[in-house]
Amino acid sequence: MSNDSAKTNFKWVGKRTRRPDGVDKVTGRARYGDDMIVPGMLHAKILRSPHAHAKILSIDTSKAAALKGVKAVLTSAEIPDHALIKPPYGPVITDFHDISRNVMARDKVLYDGHAVASVAATSERIARQALKLIDVEYEVLPHVLDPLAAAQADAPLLHEHQYTHGLESEPTEPSNVFRVVSKERGNLDTGFAEADVIVEREFTSEPVHQGYIEPQACIATASEDASVELWTTTQGHFVIRALCAKLLNMEMAKIRVTASEIGGGFGGKNNVYAEPVAIRLSQMTGRPVRIVMTRTEVFRATGPASGTHSWIRVGAKNDGTITAGEAVIHNQAGAFKGSPVGRSLESFFSAYTIPNIRATAYDVCVNRPKVAAYRAPGAPMATFAAEGVINELADRLGIDAIDLRLKNAVREGDESLAGLKYGRIGLIDVLEKAKSHDHYSASLGPNQGRGFALGYWMHGGGLSSVAANLLDDGTVSVATGNPDIGGSRSSMRAMAAEELGIDIEMIKPIVADTGSLGYSHLTAGSRTTFATGMAVINAVREIIDKLRALAAKKWTIPVDEITWEAGQAVTGREGIKALSLQELAGMATKMGGAIAGHSEINAGGAGAAFSAQLVDVEVDPETGFVSPKRYTVFQDVGRAISPDYVEGQIQGGAVQGIGWALNEEYVYDDQGHLQNTGFLDYRMPVASDVPMIDAVLIEVPNPNHPYGVRGVGEPPLVPAPAAVTNAVENAIGKTMSSLPLSPPRVLKAIDRIRAGND
Amino acid sequence: MSNDSAKTNFKWVGKRTRRPDGVDKVTGRARYGDDMIVPGMLHAKILRSPHAHAKILSIDTSKAAALKGVKAVLTSAEIPDHALIKPPYGPVITDFHDISRNVMARDKVLYDGHAVASVAATSERIARQALKLIDVEYEVLPHVLDPLAAAQADAPLLHEHQYTHGLESEPTEPSNVFRVVSKERGNLDTGFAEADVIVEREFTSEPVHQGYIEPQACIATASEDASVELWTTTQGHFVIRALCAKLLNMEMAKIRVTASEIGGGFGGKNNVYAEPVAIRLSQMTGRPVRIVMTRTEVFRATGPASGTHSWIRVGAKNDGTITAGEAVIHNQAGAFKGSPVGRSLESFFSAYTIPNIRATAYDVCVNRPKVAAYRAPGAPMATFAAEGVINELADRLGIDAIDLRLKNAVREGDESLAGLKYGRIGLIDVLEKAKSHDHYSASLGPNQGRGFALGYWMHGGGLSSVAANLLDDGTVSVATGNPDIGGSRSSMRAMAAEELGIDIEMIKPIVADTGSLGYSHLTAGSRTTFATGMAVINAVREIIDKLRALAAKKWTIPVDEITWEAGQAVTGREGIKALSLQELAGMATKMGGAIAGHSEINAGGAGAAFSAQLVDVEVDPETGFVSPKRYTVFQDVGRAISPDYVEGQIQGGAVQGIGWALNEEYVYDDQGHLQNTGFLDYRMPVASDVPMIDAVLIEVPNPNHPYGVRGVGEPPLVPAPAAVTNAVENAIGKTMSSLPLSPPRVLKAIDRIRAGND
Repeated sequence: MSNDSAKTNFKWVGKRTRRPDGVDKVTGRARYGDDMIVPGMLHAKILRSPHAHAKILSIDTSKAAALKGVKAVLTSAEIPDHALIKPPYGPVITDFHDISRNVMARDKVLYDGHAVASVAATSERIARQALKLIDVEYEVLPHVLDPLAAAQADAPLLHEHQYTHGLESEPTEPSNVFRVVSKERGNLDTGFAEADVIVEREFTSEPVHQGYIEPQACIATASEDASVELWTTTQGHFVIRALCAKLLNMEMAKIRVTASEIGGGFGGKNNVYAEPVAIRLSQMTGRPVRIVMTRTEVFRATGPASGTHSWIRVGAKNDGTITAGEAVIHNQAGAFKGSPVGRSLESFFSAYTIPNIRATAYDVCVNRPKVAAYRAPGAPMATFAAEGVINELADRLGIDAIDLRLKNAVREGDESLAGLKYGRIGLIDVLEKAKSHDHYSASLGPNQGRGFALGYWMHGGGLSSVAANLLDDGTVSVATGNPDIGGSRSSMRAMAAEELGIDIEMIKPIVADTGSLGYSHLTAGSRTTFATGMAVINAVREIIDKLRALAAKKWTIPVDEITWEAGQAVTGREGIKALSLQELAGMATKMGGAIAGHSEINAGGAGAAFSAQLVDVEVDPETGFVSPKRYTVFQDVGRAISPDYVEGQIQGGAVQGIGWALNEEYVYDDQGHLQNTGFLDYRMPVASDVPMIDAVLIEVPNPNHPYGVRGVGEPPLVPAPAAVTNAVENAIGKTMSSLPLSPPRVLKAIDRIRAGND
Repeated sequence: MSNDSAKTNFKWVGKRTRRPDGVDKVTGRARYGDDMIVPGMLHAKILRSPHAHAKILSIDTSKAAALKGVKAVLTSAEIPDHALIKPPYGPVITDFHDISRNVMARDKVLYDGHAVASVAATSERIARQALKLIDVEYEVLPHVLDPLAAAQADAPLLHEHQYTHGLESEPTEPSNVFRVVSKERGNLDTGFAEADVIVEREFTSEPVHQGYIEPQACIATASEDASVELWTTTQGHFVIRALCAKLLNMEMAKIRVTASEIGGGFGGKNNVYAEPVAIRLSQMTGRPVRIVMTRTEVFRATGPASGTHSWIRVGAKNDGTITAGEAVIHNQAGAFKGSPVGRSLESFFSAYTIPNIRATAYDVCVNRPKVAAYRAPGAPMATFAAEGVINELADRLGIDAIDLRLKNAVREGDESLAGLKYGRIGLIDVLEKAKSHDHYSASLGPNQGRGFALGYWMHGGGLSSVAANLLDDGTVSVATGNPDIGGSRSSMRAMAAEELGIDIEMIKPIVADTGSLGYSHLTAGSRTTFATGMAVINAVREIIDKLRALAAKKWTIPVDEITWEAGQAVTGREGIKALSLQELAGMATKMGGAIAGHSEINAGGAGAAFSAQLVDVEVDPETGFVSPKRYTVFQDVGRAISPDYVEGQIQGGAVQGIGWALNEEYVYDDQGHLQNTGFLDYRMPVASDVPMIDAVLIEVPNPNHPYGVRGVGEPPLVPAPAAVTNAVENAIGKTMSSLPLSPPRVLKAIDRIRAGND
């Protein structure tokens, strides 16, 4: 019950325990989005645009509607329209005008795969047949895919109503650039004037998909009384409820959402795609409606991370002191505004104490699926550019890459470009641990290179609700509103057991539906163990207080003479034997109501996390194929509540970064048709592609959390593309600025070196 | 927000509103026990005893297990055994020794239909086939069905270990009588000595089934990690969780039970039958297991109400003052102890101020299915006897039946035989309303008779938990742990809306699963609107307090200057405009956590309820067929939160009483085989059998509930058999003492009168 985040003597926190969701996942019993069957349900399929950009002249659904077995055909006419939101815009943009159009195209299609119509039928086969009977007349328009090209005045325009925000002068023409945001401190001219060395480069990164194993899937059951039950695979069923309610003009409490088990999300399951369509089709037919996307639909129509173009320059003195940094990034938003520009800006220079900085980001619409969050949204691309120039700077200055970073590293009391004053942070510890690790000095073989990069991430806090219920037999049900995407059941259980002083197996962590619990924000932003964990701690502490009160009643002594120790109510009074949680639980309902603890919080106090990564690669000089050979991640995790899962998060993040660096990209033909819509052509790393990722956990407790938790899920992806790129550069002896480092691109670089062109 | 239960000026309480569950029920969308499908589920069937009483010599399941498609065969060997509980016994007996044997017979079968084995297979058809392949070798034993016969020393003995409790001397022989309980006050000899008239009679009533439309149905999904998800139709999923956990030696928190919509229960769905079997079969097979009973199984193996034999005598002075009452009742427990003896005792004389009383009840095991609660358990049978003699007393004394009751009626401050001091009660109001009603003085046609009877019932309170969640848009989700068997969604919604001062349509009443909420006792004992309603009121008042605090923060004034009026935070301060619930809801999560209110209570303060009933019947002198013609119920409901549902409860209760009085009985052959296992042969009243039941609601608020609620579900059944019997007596001119008053029995009475034998 201590709030001393520096305490280390734990019974359950930090221990490697049985996974609470393990058995059900390996036996196939866990129920994912696709594993729900509702009697009488219909199957819906979605007709998607074959064009990257086109006007919808007409949609004739009559033939489809007449097909036997078809129960309803839906177009955007069935989805309520919404007015555009107006400035000021927050960092995250939720515009129902856009969402309604992304869910179902209205007037125009904006990307290959954009939803145009949907059919609910008695079987999937009939629904697919019916899609072919829908006649859509299009007027094809020119399209644009590249963010720099889309930002030009003469680019094909996606939205006639969109004028750029954030310019110095009022724009007179509509633009694909939704907004320009900028952050600045110090004086750039002064800063660069002080520099002895200036590195200036351009970088590009491609959109990459989260690549979750489980495609989007949901079932909606709507009632004529305006109620809806929704089963869906999501990172936040309370968010899905809110989005569906607002989008469909429904009363929020009448929508009850249950989150299925989730087969990966990584930010890609924060949004609605099929859910509002399923709800409307269910309302239209009076029957449950199920929509399960195919992998092709997932690639064509759900959100990848932004592709980016960055320009960056950094200046430093000969002693390594960085004096100035400037960066401009163009983030692809996809078809609708809202790329993570703020997080990109923040990621450029937040690990370093650079006195003079300017960072600028453009949010640019292009004819691609609207981007979604992807594990540390906005950060890996900016970090790819920033760490690329830092590594080049180290080379040019002849300073060790880690020493250069140590010299400029932020410490407690420093301020980030976003204006955040750092509290206790572990950056120095991370860098020193990396430098002293044997990986850093190990020898390399032929055609091998070693890369290093550093990543910064500020995790989230926010709204979480928890209900903890103590049962008669002393077992405890801990219900949160957060789908378990990366081990939150385990960390909630560990913290609850630690507080209560009982065996973890007595605690059952549960994900509650939206009807039973207060609002709980997404399992995203590395917030869950931090914020929902705080709510769990609050809730079980309320239970402890009630048990102390119960003991006081039983013993007829004042409650403040009773403490809670190792799962027991204890008093110093002579001759009074401690009462265990189980004993008190057994008498609780006879002496009052059921014993429960609740917490609805808006958690603040998130602590910045840093991840440094060392990677060795081997490059095949004949093919350009890059093979990672050794990978070590050094990360300040604050406190690893469940170390197995923390390591898993780190390993998963690094592997996603390897894919981002080496393989993943969207291949479009010249008409803007996506060509690689499956995992055979969109190549993500599999186990045999990567070495064991060694995770070195550095625990510098976050003083704002009772156990010192920092978010751990996102930081490991942030520096990974930069680190892998740096390793390739070192292996081939040439700087690389465009991802992915696919074999043809690497081979081309090698060939240029061989030809003496570089 | 007033606690003045006498307030009458309500916006939502007492109003006739749209049924919150209406649409889903009439469209077939509501999901009952049978409406759940889980991928990979198996279907289980139960082999049942063909004998009323037999030793199980052996069970050979090998042939069944070998049948293709059979995944598991279960016998009692798979159900943990439990030691017998020891005295002292409470009013309700929960003995896992018995429950385990009722769920699956061990060593002996004790009634026709007793479960012996179960098969889980890939289809119901295969499971049924496999049952036929199970060889059970029985040694048939003599059986006993009648409670008086079973109480004899030479009766066939069901339990060798059972010795009668509550006798004056220690018993030396085992007995079918589990216990004798007795209550006494005053001096019987003195009381009867003072009497001018003494009426002494015997009565019998038959076991009757609750007759819920939906048979028992459940699906269990067990995991190797000792967790279970259970879907079942029940009156209390928290109780089912507790029973399954204790019976199967499982940790309670690991069992998560979701209550399906329920198609009637009336006390019959308070227990476990198939659930533990489904759980064990799921554990054995690793697959979900579904068990749905047939109607035949429901009749053969689920609990009816006790059949009874009563002996009773009552003495009164010529002026109508009742001086003494004595009663002895034998209650059939079925195969295992636990008939509602306490409630039977309490029901004999609790409406009257009789100074000298003794009531004695025997709990007698017989070779019938174990009895279950049935709407006011124990009361209708005792009341049938007690009101029978009171009516005869009125006749003998020449005093109006209602006047006689008014003369002896209990009032505030009087004490019941159970030792309860009555608070504010409405008995006098009920009797006076009945006497002044035009039904009481309306003329009767030929062959018609009018009956009157009075019923007493003390409803329940106890443990209830509620979570109320205020959402961003001002709608409110109110989650309780009580399945809605008779309109609790509506009454919860009305009370929440009344407190909050918002439209009822902004409130969504929800039944939460056991994982998300604190313990909530059964929807039974007429407790839900009273006890769970109190928890709802507490929970929404917590929301109001939080909203006042939010307004205080917004206005920066002390919270105690803010009141909650008509859905708004209001302050007397100049120039501060009221903030509505919706406005406050919209700003809540920006200024703190989500807003929720919780309550876990053990509600006391239940208030006695009285129901008086007037009924006219017409008896066909040729066939003995009795047809109810007019029926009026006068009931003190405290406060009718949802009058439509209160009337529905009253109508339903009266109709069940008509069935009990006129038609329903279990027909056994001489080998103890139940003959009428379907609704064609077990005749319950249908709509065309009964007149409109007029419900006259008398509202004498219960001062212990914020809105004055008394339980309304059970009282209407209590006097109904007595009232109908009294009407038949008046029509044919002869007292009747045995139920049901089936045409042969009535015709026989008429024939005896005609023959001059009476």
